[in-house]
Amino acid sequence: MLLHEDRLFPAEGTAREVARKLYAVARDLPIISPHGHTDPAWFAQNDAFPNPAALFIQPDHYIFRMLYSQGVSLESLGIGSHRADPREVWQIFARHYYLFRGTPTRMWIDYAFRSLFGLEERLSEANADVFYDTIDKALQTPALRPRALYDSFRLEVLATTDSPLDTLEHHKAIRESGWKGRVVPTFRPDAVVDFEFANFRGNIDKLGEITGEDTSNYTGYLNALRNRRAFFKQMGATATDHGHLTARTADLSKSEAEALYAKIYGGKASHEDGELFQAQMLTEMAGMSVEDGLVMQLHPGSVRNHNSGLYEKFGRDKGADIPAPTEYVRSLRPLLTKYGNESNFTFVLFTLDESTYARELAPLAGHYPCLRLGPAWWFHDSPEGMMRYREQVTETAGFYNTAGFNDDTRALLSIPARHDVARRVDCAFLGRLVAEHRIDEDEAFELIEDLTVNLARKVYRL
Amino acid sequence: MLLHEDRLFPAEGTAREVARKLYAVARDLPIISPHGHTDPAWFAQNDAFPNPAALFIQPDHYIFRMLYSQGVSLESLGIGSHRADPREVWQIFARHYYLFRGTPTRMWIDYAFRSLFGLEERLSEANADVFYDTIDKALQTPALRPRALYDSFRLEVLATTDSPLDTLEHHKAIRESGWKGRVVPTFRPDAVVDFEFANFRGNIDKLGEITGEDTSNYTGYLNALRNRRAFFKQMGATATDHGHLTARTADLSKSEAEALYAKIYGGKASHEDGELFQAQMLTEMAGMSVEDGLVMQLHPGSVRNHNSGLYEKFGRDKGADIPAPTEYVRSLRPLLTKYGNESNFTFVLFTLDESTYARELAPLAGHYPCLRLGPAWWFHDSPEGMMRYREQVTETAGFYNTAGFNDDTRALLSIPARHDVARRVDCAFLGRLVAEHRIDEDEAFELIEDLTVNLARKVYRL
Amino acid sequence: MLLHEDRLFPAEGTAREVARKLYAVARDLPIISPHGHTDPAWFAQNDAFPNPAALFIQPDHYIFRMLYSQGVSLESLGIGSHRADPREVWQIFARHYYLFRGTPTRMWIDYAFRSLFGLEERLSEANADVFYDTIDKALQTPALRPRALYDSFRLEVLATTDSPLDTLEHHKAIRESGWKGRVVPTFRPDAVVDFEFANFRGNIDKLGEITGEDTSNYTGYLNALRNRRAFFKQMGATATDHGHLTARTADLSKSEAEALYAKIYGGKASHEDGELFQAQMLTEMAGMSVEDGLVMQLHPGSVRNHNSGLYEKFGRDKGADIPAPTEYVRSLRPLLTKYGNESNFTFVLFTLDESTYARELAPLAGHYPCLRLGPAWWFHDSPEGMMRYREQVTETAGFYNTAGFNDDTRALLSIPARHDVARRVDCAFLGRLVAEHRIDEDEAFELIEDLTVNLARKVYRL
Repeated sequence: MLLHEDRLFPAEGTAREVARKLYAVARDLPIISPHGHTDPAWFAQNDAFPNPAALFIQPDHYIFRMLYSQGVSLESLGIGSHRADPREVWQIFARHYYLFRGTPTRMWIDYAFRSLFGLEERLSEANADVFYDTIDKALQTPALRPRALYDSFRLEVLATTDSPLDTLEHHKAIRESGWKGRVVPTFRPDAVVDFEFANFRGNIDKLGEITGEDTSNYTGYLNALRNRRAFFKQMGATATDHGHLTARTADLSKSEAEALYAKIYGGKASHEDGELFQAQMLTEMAGMSVEDGLVMQLHPGSVRNHNSGLYEKFGRDKGADIPAPTEYVRSLRPLLTKYGNESNFTFVLFTLDESTYARELAPLAGHYPCLRLGPAWWFHDSPEGMMRYREQVTETAGFYNTAGFNDDTRALLSIPARHDVARRVDCAFLGRLVAEHRIDEDEAFELIEDLTVNLARKVYRL
Repeated sequence: MLLHEDRLFPAEGTAREVARKLYAVARDLPIISPHGHTDPAWFAQNDAFPNPAALFIQPDHYIFRMLYSQGVSLESLGIGSHRADPREVWQIFARHYYLFRGTPTRMWIDYAFRSLFGLEERLSEANADVFYDTIDKALQTPALRPRALYDSFRLEVLATTDSPLDTLEHHKAIRESGWKGRVVPTFRPDAVVDFEFANFRGNIDKLGEITGEDTSNYTGYLNALRNRRAFFKQMGATATDHGHLTARTADLSKSEAEALYAKIYGGKASHEDGELFQAQMLTEMAGMSVEDGLVMQLHPGSVRNHNSGLYEKFGRDKGADIPAPTEYVRSLRPLLTKYGNESNFTFVLFTLDESTYARELAPLAGHYPCLRLGPAWWFHDSPEGMMRYREQVTETAGFYNTAGFNDDTRALLSIPARHDVARRVDCAFLGRLVAEHRIDEDEAFELIEDLTVNLARKVYRL
Repeated sequence: MLLHEDRLFPAEGTAREVARKLYAVARDLPIISPHGHTDPAWFAQNDAFPNPAALFIQPDHYIFRMLYSQGVSLESLGIGSHRADPREVWQIFARHYYLFRGTPTRMWIDYAFRSLFGLEERLSEANADVFYDTIDKALQTPALRPRALYDSFRLEVLATTDSPLDTLEHHKAIRESGWKGRVVPTFRPDAVVDFEFANFRGNIDKLGEITGEDTSNYTGYLNALRNRRAFFKQMGATATDHGHLTARTADLSKSEAEALYAKIYGGKASHEDGELFQAQMLTEMAGMSVEDGLVMQLHPGSVRNHNSGLYEKFGRDKGADIPAPTEYVRSLRPLLTKYGNESNFTFVLFTLDESTYARELAPLAGHYPCLRLGPAWWFHDSPEGMMRYREQVTETAGFYNTAGFNDDTRALLSIPARHDVARRVDCAFLGRLVAEHRIDEDEAFELIEDLTVNLARKVYRL
């Protein structure tokens, strides 16, 4: 029988009893999803998903990177431009399902199998076809359409992540459709800030066209960004997001920044110029957040497309993004010196380098009024990862300098499963604190609501 | 009811039973405090503390940094040159007391509330005035004077931290007063070693005046330091303390060191010169410790005054010192090559970078005869922090290459609370080792006494 | 009574019950030892071991580094060229046995005391002579000869580590002796790859002599290495091993590599040249592994012989090798770009820097098909170290991208003890996963066999 009702709680005693009671509250709270990567077109068009492989496997790099690591070719899974029979893809997946033992992926998928499709066995080679047929059939029903899923997941708000060049036409369609779901965009300017981004100069020019600003000079470029931020805000956005290799920031003089932009725009920038420009732009974006109130998020530390051969054949997001050591204290100083004490500024920091939790991030967030810590992210969005986060962050930053949970996913079906894991781990952590007499039980009940919904609502201004 | 008697012990079973039995022993042992920052004037003058805000809030950067991180201004707390009504400061604190949930600060303060003032509720906006009045009244009683607190805390020895330029007049007054308390100074030469220290050159000149040495040259400077160390030792000091940004050490030739000092003294040093000088001075200080037997302590890794705006308005120690990654293996090699095998040398290492516990510090301390590891420090002086320390240090360095507990505090009232937390965590750790049959119970009883009092006495030569 | 039957299991409840059941299976499985440092001459000659001190203390740097850290001189232990009465050495050890409380060394030694010598008390000054006499007497019996120990330990295969210049005469003698034990060599080319290795140029010349290749040029040098790898393979080797300071790899053009080798061979290489050459050689070795199928192991991150004074007096391997921060993501990229997707390539990574488990190693191993993670190594081959490994690796890499256990020891008697600790910790980890409903119990039974024997057999191609 999939998914025991006490999963992820402490195995014994008072801590488990308290965790159960807290979860009875947490389970029924709505889902706030302030950071994620679902496709707004799903909700605009509300079409059925095509088949189990296309839904569960082909878009999910958590799954196919694990299969690839054990010798399964991406071609055989129908990834990229390759065609594969979806049932055969499903059978390969089922045959290798044992690889996911002990991983959060397994828990997320089992949750979807059971809660959405009523499947109660463990997936295996033997029952692969039964699973395939059950899921395939259900996908044709109205209950499995995107809007119905949004409602049945009890989502209160769902943020997508969008290019500054995006017309947000799907968001517009959603708003005009009369449907009550709240799907909001997030302003992610990498395409016009990261000088190594595909078609970077073309993107800058397009930014100028869209906004009517002259992006050949720095002032016009900044104004164009302001213009797009205002548009995103008008379309419901409450936040921006920035995915840099490092957390480096800079605070150049106006003339230095203009000269640097001229090199960047003219295509004459060195690698160091490009990195300095990104550093400068984080500080500029912080300044714009002080102006317009959009919450700023920073997701640094991932070396993208580490496997060059795979990248050439299959492109981005194929499970080969690998974290690197990340430094925050010196890197963020220019930005924090300029804007760290501003009362209207909220800056949410994430990391893939857990050694920074207790050493750098909790002390920073436990001091600067603008800072909040995002939840355990990506590889650390897992029971052990979340527990390490709470254990290493709380004693210095407290609970109230954290930002609630993000599911950060492009896998729609995994959203309730991911929030469920986060809630269970928080219940387990609080249950232990109560059992060890480190907080009182009434405080734990207040905290579980804050961690589950209130902090996310407040930090992201939702 | 504040503070359950089983707090911080394992929540269930044999581990808890053993922890309870060990704590029954540990609880009644005296407090050895070989490293801290209380003011010797308190014990020399034995005046009453002014009011609850001045005692608990205004001097404690653990408290006001957390309030500041959530938007409370330092002005409103009466920090720096700002005046604020102490009762209003207390009310702000009470209103935000929930921010400390899950932090050691909360546990320390609750301990003082209950043990010193008989307060048994949790502080809140509703009872803030009752707390204020109760504490304020008690502060006027003889039992709350510094010497009475020293006695009631059962302190065996309390070390302060002092500038090499300090006359130690308060220590002198204490010794001549006939009072039996043992308050000893610690030699902390940052003011004449750190070239960025306020009034550095003036300090060097004053060092020359005090000692009658010619500190315009390196030999005179070193002799002046020797002279002051001898004075501190005569006044009861058993240790020195060094607070550098990094753990870098150097072993320059005599002529190189003299030339470097000439640049430093002449105010012509580059930043790199200044860092090299500090590195060289750590090795010189180690050599002096070999001569005079003072135990050497190194506290590296804190980027001081990270928040420039706040520093300009409020000065040092305002909760904006942030740890940075710290390297020990290559950094300490020059010093350890020269003095690491000396039998009369004790060198206690601290860190704010927990990733070095298992990787660098435990292997170093598990080999070099001079090295001992100081306890979990500052942000890591917390239940989870201490537990990680034991878990990551013990298997390589054992228990006997550690140095017992330091409270490291300027908050007098928190001393027994901090030692109590440390003792409880050690009981919990040992209780688990016994319950998992990794040590025998009779060994745990020996160990708890060693960890609580014997190691500190021995390592610090008290 | 030494060694409780439930040692290292969770102290309570379901997790303990499951751990016990799993251990009942694991306990009786054979020992696979694919990486270690025992002396093949022992099995070739099958002589008795001389005395307790020579067996337990003098060759074991885990033991004498701890004694040295507490002021015991290596001279008094008869280390190096120093002579000491073995009984007196044993008494020193017994007197200091309390230092090992909480360390894995203590658990390994107690295991040998009890299982091989029937000793059931804890070693102390009082019973030191009884222990000495009991062990000394037993060492003269046939049951304590190397081959008998191999059999009684139920070793299935035992790999040694050997210089490429080694004649493998002992391995040859074992194979020709008719004895059924499987003792295989491992190809470890440090002596002809590390330009700072003692007599490096002489080693290169000898490599040429042995193989008949002209090692004065790069092509001849590479061919000579290919030749020796083939010889090792013919003598039973299935793996190579590489002990570099860093994980740096390079992929030079043929002409660059030839020019670099000319400098190295000619003794005109800078330090940077030497490091680049090692980086290049890792990639060359990977290429040879693709050709010949030998599994490649990388053990980076140890700063060797940190204590210069001790090294000058006593030589290598005296407990003064200290780990340093180690970077993998950028370092391994050249090698992985060239060979990371090869289906015939297995590359096992180790680390002494635990901060890389979740940040770098698990994401790399969870993607690249060639990569497997070696077990917790050296200072981390300990209960807490192994548990951190499982907790930080499993959620991203799963269990099946790990390589089973290595005892990595030159202490023959500790082999079964080390495997026993590893099995118990795995049972404890799996027991907790079952108790927390994160895997099913039937999966745990499959996993414990995989972790104990199947993964090692498969990854090391045994």
